[in-house]
Amino acid sequence: MATPADIAASDVRDAHEIRHWDREADVVVVGFGCAGACAAIEAAEAGAETLVLERAGGGGGTSALAGGLIYLGGGTPVQEACGYHDTVEGMFTFLMAACGPSPDEAKVRVFCEQSVAHFHWLEAHGVPFKRSYYPEPSMEPPTDDCLVYSGGEDAYPFDALTPPVPRAHKPQTPNAAGGFLMQRLIAATEKAGATVLCDARAETLVVERDGRVVGVVMRHDGREHLVRARRGVVLTAGGFVQNDAMLQRHSPLLQRCNYRLGVDGDDGRAIRMAMGAGADLSRMHAGEVAVPITPPRRLVRGILVTPAGQRFINEDAYYGRVGQEGLFRHGGRMFMIFDTAIYERNLAGFETHFVEETIADLERVAGFPDGSLQRTVELYNRHAANGEDPLFHKHRQYLQPLVQAPFAAIDCSTDKVIWATFTLGGLRTNPASEVLRPDGQIIPGLYAAGRTTNGIAAEGYVSGISLGDGTFFGRAAGRNAAASRE
Amino acid sequence: MATPADIAASDVRDAHEIRHWDREADVVVVGFGCAGACAAIEAAEAGAETLVLERAGGGGGTSALAGGLIYLGGGTPVQEACGYHDTVEGMFTFLMAACGPSPDEAKVRVFCEQSVAHFHWLEAHGVPFKRSYYPEPSMEPPTDDCLVYSGGEDAYPFDALTPPVPRAHKPQTPNAAGGFLMQRLIAATEKAGATVLCDARAETLVVERDGRVVGVVMRHDGREHLVRARRGVVLTAGGFVQNDAMLQRHSPLLQRCNYRLGVDGDDGRAIRMAMGAGADLSRMHAGEVAVPITPPRRLVRGILVTPAGQRFINEDAYYGRVGQEGLFRHGGRMFMIFDTAIYERNLAGFETHFVEETIADLERVAGFPDGSLQRTVELYNRHAANGEDPLFHKHRQYLQPLVQAPFAAIDCSTDKVIWATFTLGGLRTNPASEVLRPDGQIIPGLYAAGRTTNGIAAEGYVSGISLGDGTFFGRAAGRNAAASRE
Repeated sequence: MATPADIAASDVRDAHEIRHWDREADVVVVGFGCAGACAAIEAAEAGAETLVLERAGGGGGTSALAGGLIYLGGGTPVQEACGYHDTVEGMFTFLMAACGPSPDEAKVRVFCEQSVAHFHWLEAHGVPFKRSYYPEPSMEPPTDDCLVYSGGEDAYPFDALTPPVPRAHKPQTPNAAGGFLMQRLIAATEKAGATVLCDARAETLVVERDGRVVGVVMRHDGREHLVRARRGVVLTAGGFVQNDAMLQRHSPLLQRCNYRLGVDGDDGRAIRMAMGAGADLSRMHAGEVAVPITPPRRLVRGILVTPAGQRFINEDAYYGRVGQEGLFRHGGRMFMIFDTAIYERNLAGFETHFVEETIADLERVAGFPDGSLQRTVELYNRHAANGEDPLFHKHRQYLQPLVQAPFAAIDCSTDKVIWATFTLGGLRTNPASEVLRPDGQIIPGLYAAGRTTNGIAAEGYVSGISLGDGTFFGRAAGRNAAASRE
Repeated sequence: MATPADIAASDVRDAHEIRHWDREADVVVVGFGCAGACAAIEAAEAGAETLVLERAGGGGGTSALAGGLIYLGGGTPVQEACGYHDTVEGMFTFLMAACGPSPDEAKVRVFCEQSVAHFHWLEAHGVPFKRSYYPEPSMEPPTDDCLVYSGGEDAYPFDALTPPVPRAHKPQTPNAAGGFLMQRLIAATEKAGATVLCDARAETLVVERDGRVVGVVMRHDGREHLVRARRGVVLTAGGFVQNDAMLQRHSPLLQRCNYRLGVDGDDGRAIRMAMGAGADLSRMHAGEVAVPITPPRRLVRGILVTPAGQRFINEDAYYGRVGQEGLFRHGGRMFMIFDTAIYERNLAGFETHFVEETIADLERVAGFPDGSLQRTVELYNRHAANGEDPLFHKHRQYLQPLVQAPFAAIDCSTDKVIWATFTLGGLRTNPASEVLRPDGQIIPGLYAAGRTTNGIAAEGYVSGISLGDGTFFGRAAGRNAAASRE
């Protein structure tokens, strides 16, 4: 069990007790991932003296480990060049449906309305996007191509709500682009004139008696430093996927996932610091859960079944949706079933666990209840032969009867293949990235963005939304902090 | 949309601004349901001058509307008289599994260890229990019998963890016993010497500058009264199922349920009052969701299927578990399928929506995908004929092939039959019923119990646990408040 200190709100430091500040800036940004970089750029460009505190030895954070997809839409130049007609309303409708139940409508609205402008801002700050589309969805292209489907926009149930359009934009570099994105944003941060201090761990907020946040206490060079923030503190220091005690408290099922997407710093410290200053929390049980079955996309022509031998989802759904359904609804236990015509080793290297000449043998050997998998495959095949999936609505182009022996099963349970997770819950903020109290009032001087907050992806998830809302609301945090006055 | 005031923390009143108290007591209890009554009894019996404030015209609250089951175990006199051997460890094992994921272990532990003593306390305070068992589970017996299974103790997956024992104890009166229970507890409250003031709505906590809660502001007789609490305030004023804005914020899916189990006062006011004093919240997304399919128990010989024609649970599971799975995992859409040998009108009056001579016809008319229900019934029947359910582990005695025409379906979706809900999330408290801050520290002078708190049923639910933990932790709240000193 965790010690209480790992879960609890941090104490705050009373500003009245401070006689001497070791350092001062207008805006102090805690954490140097994508949200922190964008906050610092905006603050510095607005003329604020800006200091970024990064606890690691260099900038990047979990953003640099990411695939690099950024969720943008409403008619970006890349979408238009590739022949996709997107609208603000279409993007809004999709995100409200995919990120729910009931994501923060005001935040989703502004995120969609200003998305094209945000695209241009990123390009103007050194993040290039090739005007090209890549057909394999959900993951970053191995090429330097840009646009991909990343949230099941073209799959049930979302394609029935609004015309499907790809919206994940990868910066122009081959393979994973998170590191590249952060190189560019770090360069832009320096160019904007912000000061970056690494190996500097913010630990405590300094708060006036009236509740205004006016600085941070941080550790650097082996000792405590008091850093005054004349206009505001911006918390952009990641989520809490590396904090077992917080996971146990808020979202125990996530602990079953065997791959935690996050740097060491994702220990929830910034969330706990803000709690100490009275911040409200939102959707702390929510988590991204990805089972990277695809690419290649052809694998969704197989079927996913529970240990009871039943299908439970359209297999062409975004694999993050598959993961959330698999974990939260089926306890992290599922199998993929293929025939030889469909099978191919996937990119994550999943191996078949069972290969048999008949479905009946596969059913028996893999331990499904007698007759269960046979009936599931029989029914699936019958409808697939007609190009239909009346149970789960997989699209016609992925419907292919499983008929060519041998047949195979991959045990996709949490103890067998990659289940990747990070947390989605965090501080409750408004569209201006101001941190809110439980009474809905803002905490003066305190801003936050990225996975320190509960963002656009309130509970559901789509690839690209973390870099998307991290950069977008990071900018708002920096801009509004710079415009704030004591 | 709700106004922010309906969601937000209440302001608190600064004790230093108060020159004159309208009224004083040692312990002030807010809310007069089962938790409030038990708190008041303990406080008054400990010698504390005790005042109960009830916003309605009389005591009872949602407790009086309840069936009256009280979850007690570990070897109560009723269990022993009926030949059931229960242990503290068995009760603990069951509750940790059924009320999770990860209920508060310390609270579950003390609840189990002191359960037999709590039984005797209830009897000593006028709540009689007949030494008898009633075989129809989950609901209060129509007779004055006492002991029932109420949480699927005898069903998969719990019966494999610990020997099944019935633990819900109904006070000795026919039919629903919540009103009877509250009559007895109200009488005991008066006998203990507590003062009860009805039509008195507590609105605001009064807090010292150091954070200690020292009173409440309440409305009574058309005006505001300042009530000093010399030793402590106990909040036992129900959950928030009647507050649409709070449901929308914290647990939007619960809004699909068409039957809200709660009096008007379950508007979350006490939770918001405590938030204003800095209280932490726990599991605000959790809710009890019951689809009262049974009694009669014979109906679980039918099968429950999703709109895709698939079974999803052992039908002999507790119907609150069926409801939670049905709502949170399947969006509140499911059907019951019977044959003529099994069908019977259930107690809640559910009517068949479709009756056909063959399963194939039923499948078509009720709108299931072609072949889906046929295969499900065929597989179920084949195993049921052998007394087996390898998919979902329904018990042998409820396995009866569906073969006798005509066949029927009841559409059990949220818009067709009763889905009853109340909230399980609330204030975070420790086993002493002290209200905690986000940093894990207690708020001096503030106690809470019942559905104002997140209790034993952290997320999962069993019938009888609300009156069980309400009475148990209500007592702790009253006892500890009485023992507190300014």
